[in-house]
Amino acid sequence: MVSLHDMTMTGDAMHRFIADLYPICRSITGDGVRQTLDIIRARIPLSAREVPTGTPVFDWTVPREWNVKDAYIKNARGERVVDFQRSNLHVLNYSAPVKKTVSLAELKGHLYSLPDHPDWIPYRTSYYQERWGFCLSHHDLLRLTDDEYEVCIDSSLAPGALTYGEYYLRGERAEEVLFSTHVCHPSLCNDNLAGIAVAVFLAQHLQLLPRRYSYRFLFLPGTIGPITWLALNQSGAAKITHGLVLACLGDPGHSTYKKSRRGDCEIDRAVAHVLKHSGTAYDITEFTPYGYDERQYGSPGFNLPVGCFMRTPHGRYPEYHTSADNLSLVTPAALADSLSKCITVVRLLERNRSYLNQNPFCEPQLGQRGLYRTMGGQTGEALNELALLWVLNLSDGRHTLLDIAERADMPFDEVANAAAALLAHDLLKACG
Amino acid sequence: MVSLHDMTMTGDAMHRFIADLYPICRSITGDGVRQTLDIIRARIPLSAREVPTGTPVFDWTVPREWNVKDAYIKNARGERVVDFQRSNLHVLNYSAPVKKTVSLAELKGHLYSLPDHPDWIPYRTSYYQERWGFCLSHHDLLRLTDDEYEVCIDSSLAPGALTYGEYYLRGERAEEVLFSTHVCHPSLCNDNLAGIAVAVFLAQHLQLLPRRYSYRFLFLPGTIGPITWLALNQSGAAKITHGLVLACLGDPGHSTYKKSRRGDCEIDRAVAHVLKHSGTAYDITEFTPYGYDERQYGSPGFNLPVGCFMRTPHGRYPEYHTSADNLSLVTPAALADSLSKCITVVRLLERNRSYLNQNPFCEPQLGQRGLYRTMGGQTGEALNELALLWVLNLSDGRHTLLDIAERADMPFDEVANAAAALLAHDLLKACG
Amino acid sequence: MVSLHDMTMTGDAMHRFIADLYPICRSITGDGVRQTLDIIRARIPLSAREVPTGTPVFDWTVPREWNVKDAYIKNARGERVVDFQRSNLHVLNYSAPVKKTVSLAELKGHLYSLPDHPDWIPYRTSYYQERWGFCLSHHDLLRLTDDEYEVCIDSSLAPGALTYGEYYLRGERAEEVLFSTHVCHPSLCNDNLAGIAVAVFLAQHLQLLPRRYSYRFLFLPGTIGPITWLALNQSGAAKITHGLVLACLGDPGHSTYKKSRRGDCEIDRAVAHVLKHSGTAYDITEFTPYGYDERQYGSPGFNLPVGCFMRTPHGRYPEYHTSADNLSLVTPAALADSLSKCITVVRLLERNRSYLNQNPFCEPQLGQRGLYRTMGGQTGEALNELALLWVLNLSDGRHTLLDIAERADMPFDEVANAAAALLAHDLLKACG
Repeated sequence: MVSLHDMTMTGDAMHRFIADLYPICRSITGDGVRQTLDIIRARIPLSAREVPTGTPVFDWTVPREWNVKDAYIKNARGERVVDFQRSNLHVLNYSAPVKKTVSLAELKGHLYSLPDHPDWIPYRTSYYQERWGFCLSHHDLLRLTDDEYEVCIDSSLAPGALTYGEYYLRGERAEEVLFSTHVCHPSLCNDNLAGIAVAVFLAQHLQLLPRRYSYRFLFLPGTIGPITWLALNQSGAAKITHGLVLACLGDPGHSTYKKSRRGDCEIDRAVAHVLKHSGTAYDITEFTPYGYDERQYGSPGFNLPVGCFMRTPHGRYPEYHTSADNLSLVTPAALADSLSKCITVVRLLERNRSYLNQNPFCEPQLGQRGLYRTMGGQTGEALNELALLWVLNLSDGRHTLLDIAERADMPFDEVANAAAALLAHDLLKACG
Repeated sequence: MVSLHDMTMTGDAMHRFIADLYPICRSITGDGVRQTLDIIRARIPLSAREVPTGTPVFDWTVPREWNVKDAYIKNARGERVVDFQRSNLHVLNYSAPVKKTVSLAELKGHLYSLPDHPDWIPYRTSYYQERWGFCLSHHDLLRLTDDEYEVCIDSSLAPGALTYGEYYLRGERAEEVLFSTHVCHPSLCNDNLAGIAVAVFLAQHLQLLPRRYSYRFLFLPGTIGPITWLALNQSGAAKITHGLVLACLGDPGHSTYKKSRRGDCEIDRAVAHVLKHSGTAYDITEFTPYGYDERQYGSPGFNLPVGCFMRTPHGRYPEYHTSADNLSLVTPAALADSLSKCITVVRLLERNRSYLNQNPFCEPQLGQRGLYRTMGGQTGEALNELALLWVLNLSDGRHTLLDIAERADMPFDEVANAAAALLAHDLLKACG
Repeated sequence: MVSLHDMTMTGDAMHRFIADLYPICRSITGDGVRQTLDIIRARIPLSAREVPTGTPVFDWTVPREWNVKDAYIKNARGERVVDFQRSNLHVLNYSAPVKKTVSLAELKGHLYSLPDHPDWIPYRTSYYQERWGFCLSHHDLLRLTDDEYEVCIDSSLAPGALTYGEYYLRGERAEEVLFSTHVCHPSLCNDNLAGIAVAVFLAQHLQLLPRRYSYRFLFLPGTIGPITWLALNQSGAAKITHGLVLACLGDPGHSTYKKSRRGDCEIDRAVAHVLKHSGTAYDITEFTPYGYDERQYGSPGFNLPVGCFMRTPHGRYPEYHTSADNLSLVTPAALADSLSKCITVVRLLERNRSYLNQNPFCEPQLGQRGLYRTMGGQTGEALNELALLWVLNLSDGRHTLLDIAERADMPFDEVANAAAALLAHDLLKACG
């Protein structure tokens, strides 16, 4: 479908796109998200939605908007020993503003480091309990002497809005395929600039193709984002027929698919099929109510058919939620592979239909139609002849092409190509 | 739930209780059963039922009552070479009376021994064909010389009654949990004074607790006992919602659960869950129509959800149905372990319910309610948070807590405790 | 059922029957099929059906009749270097007539050989595209020098008929068991004189027995044969309740059963049960729409419960579709074993019924009826007692004897014999 050369170029372009987004300080609200959506808008014409602080969304309320201009810890000599300008991870994400002088002892109650990875800065948040704090490498923490320190977080927590991006691609049918990805993490590449990049490049790809389904791409802050979207679109959500949360799609680990809550939806089977025939290692895991935004889409009131596509799952790679999740962790090859698999899944969904064999009593005469060899007696059969026979045999209106591919243990496209050939000879008719 | 110290004390008490019951000569009818029920009545206020000989019970008839005062084989010198006073196993259980002098050849046609275990006396019965006979060690059999022998079995087979014990503990609901155990074996400890002891101590435990279900304990002779009870309670039997036959629960082998005829009842899943999370080795076997009284409860006309809980199954340990099934074979530790597992199963059944998530659209804000950490970004999660999420996610009225525990692969109590916390915060409502 | 001595004699007789059929040049139409049916008619009174050329049968048309008198390739010295009289495989089956002189170069375009098996003549056909051609050993091909050759195929392709044989054995019920076997291959023994022999000897066996089901044996050319039969019997086909295509049943490989399209029919379970308890190695494979005439019976408009019974599947043995599929490849032992398994499958289908336990509440008193030992306390039980208990336990009208045998993991006949004993004591009643 996509040549190796194209994939290499695409992977490089995705990596450059991530590099553009990397420096921005994002959070669940604030200008970092707006800047991120602006950069995305250069590629796809998405709409930015602004939901005012205080809007009730199910059990939650849209929180205040957080912005930060600067933050540092200065020692008594006025030197910045921790500096937000060097890494936005240094400030506890969503930290309350603070400006005062504190002893080392008091300061330590507000510092977060990783003793096991002493060079890395951790990523920490405190959205729903007001705190102030700094994250720093453990080496830097150990270097702090018994001194007085000036701490400054020049942040604001004020009424404003929660911002998210939405891009809708109309297709023949109102049924939607959802791709949802979180945009709330600051300078972390795999989690989740990689997911954003795959979503954006996938959307660009789909713009150019005929579409049976409609497609909705959501670029949202984690948790509160989908909660807000679902609250504002409670009835419209029922149009979501298939969906994927896209997260952590750039690390060199193999692909992982976490099933939807229902576990046996078409999206679950489609992704499993694509991974099985991908020629690459992969994992498929059961749904759990812990993870990414499939938690909200899979809440019992919605129970949407939305799984989660990622590479190494959260918490399973050491760089997770640290400054080591940087531009070196994500590779062009991994990004391109993730995108390619998403494209293959979409193609499968688009092509997956049920057909009715128009000649259901015994086999039709395929040879006469040029669909079958005319010479008998030889051992073996060409694969496509077998695919033709499978499609004819199971096209009784109760089997989709994916059902047939699974039963025949063949790649979906072999089966779909066979169906197309039979359709062209009026031996099949599409159902419904 | 129960401390190690308590379990040790309980195991010792159970063993002493068995020692009190050990000397009594029991059979399917007669005074041995009455004496046994009297000793049980010192602990739980059970009712003794007397069903007259000749009462028709389905395809069967309540048999004559059997009692035995003495039995012996005397050699020509008047010495008792086999003596009922030394072991009640010496008399063929339910043996017809006899008193006569016989040759060694004739005698041998009425003797039962175990050549493979020459020191042990076998246990043999002949309930439904009138016979007389003696059981003795193979060594004793070989010592018999070519002599004349006086055989005497001072037994009676006469109209009387079949006796069984019944103890009913009322709960909130009419639905019953049945525990049935056989009381027809003479001086054999594991089979089934152990089952009796577990039933009695379990009943004592349940007396003290609030109960959603009602509980019925039956102390019956094997086969004819449950047939009689079921015949007299044919319609009432439908109230049995869960049940266990308790047998052979004191040997040092690991726990074995034999499933009910249906195989997927709540009791089957409950016992399997408790065993899986018990930290001990165990076996679960499929239902077969051979074994203990689950045969009758599981006959097709009743098809009751009754499994069988035991340790080493009948016939799988060499001491089975011999004089070696004595007070040394059953251990306080094994008895206490069997009891503890029964208590855990009951607790599971009592707590197992379906709930409705009162906030089914997206997750509720657990942090605000003190149910969830407020600091984000760290790897891993506390187990109880995950249990909370599972309960919320699956409490759609179609999943019980046991369903949730199985899908989450967590111990039931973790899940039930999470449900209790959510209930206390009005996030759940009990179904039905 | 059948003694070893009888089986040896039967296997020898089957092999002699195959030897009689071996020389005939068969094809999908023509006198070879008629001669074959004549030889079969000496054993079973089958009807030969003649369906005229040009008859429309679903998507197909009954083809012209093909007959061949002689065929050869002569070199310039007039020597027959390829001679139909020595092997009817030499002529491309269904070859158009030809008589002309050709160069070696032109000739080679019409020759088929097997470089990997240079001594064997391949079997090739061209039914639906008019061609002429010869098959020969690769050694013979290499011996052809640059010469002029006279090629002659004295065949005719003319209006006539498609001939097939049908033998119907009426039973108590209109529901039918179908055995279908292909008769279109020339001098090839395993494929399919072996299938024909098993069908004929099975029919002879069934003639002598009482039959609950009716039986239909079809001796047809492959593909076009069942298409024709199904077109002429479209509504009657619904009476086929169980069926087997019989093919390649004489090679020394182990038995293979290919399931029906539905995959869980009674015939699928019956054959699987018989093979499992046969004491021989075997394979069971899933349905695919490629293979023998189960393709037509299993087309979606019919979806008949017809599997395929064979030994080594087509294409899996080197002799397949070559002159090495001769009288040495098929063995009396393999033929007799295939027949014996078919007989066992039929006996299972005949005996497989559902019964109602007439004493469904608790167990009946088997001992009183002489169906159970009267002496209790011994370890172990005779197998037939367990079979009695299983039949009683599951005879609730929802389990057939095969269901019971599978759940009890016992040979079907043990269970069926137990049912017969219980029926004789009025403890069971047949359902329906």
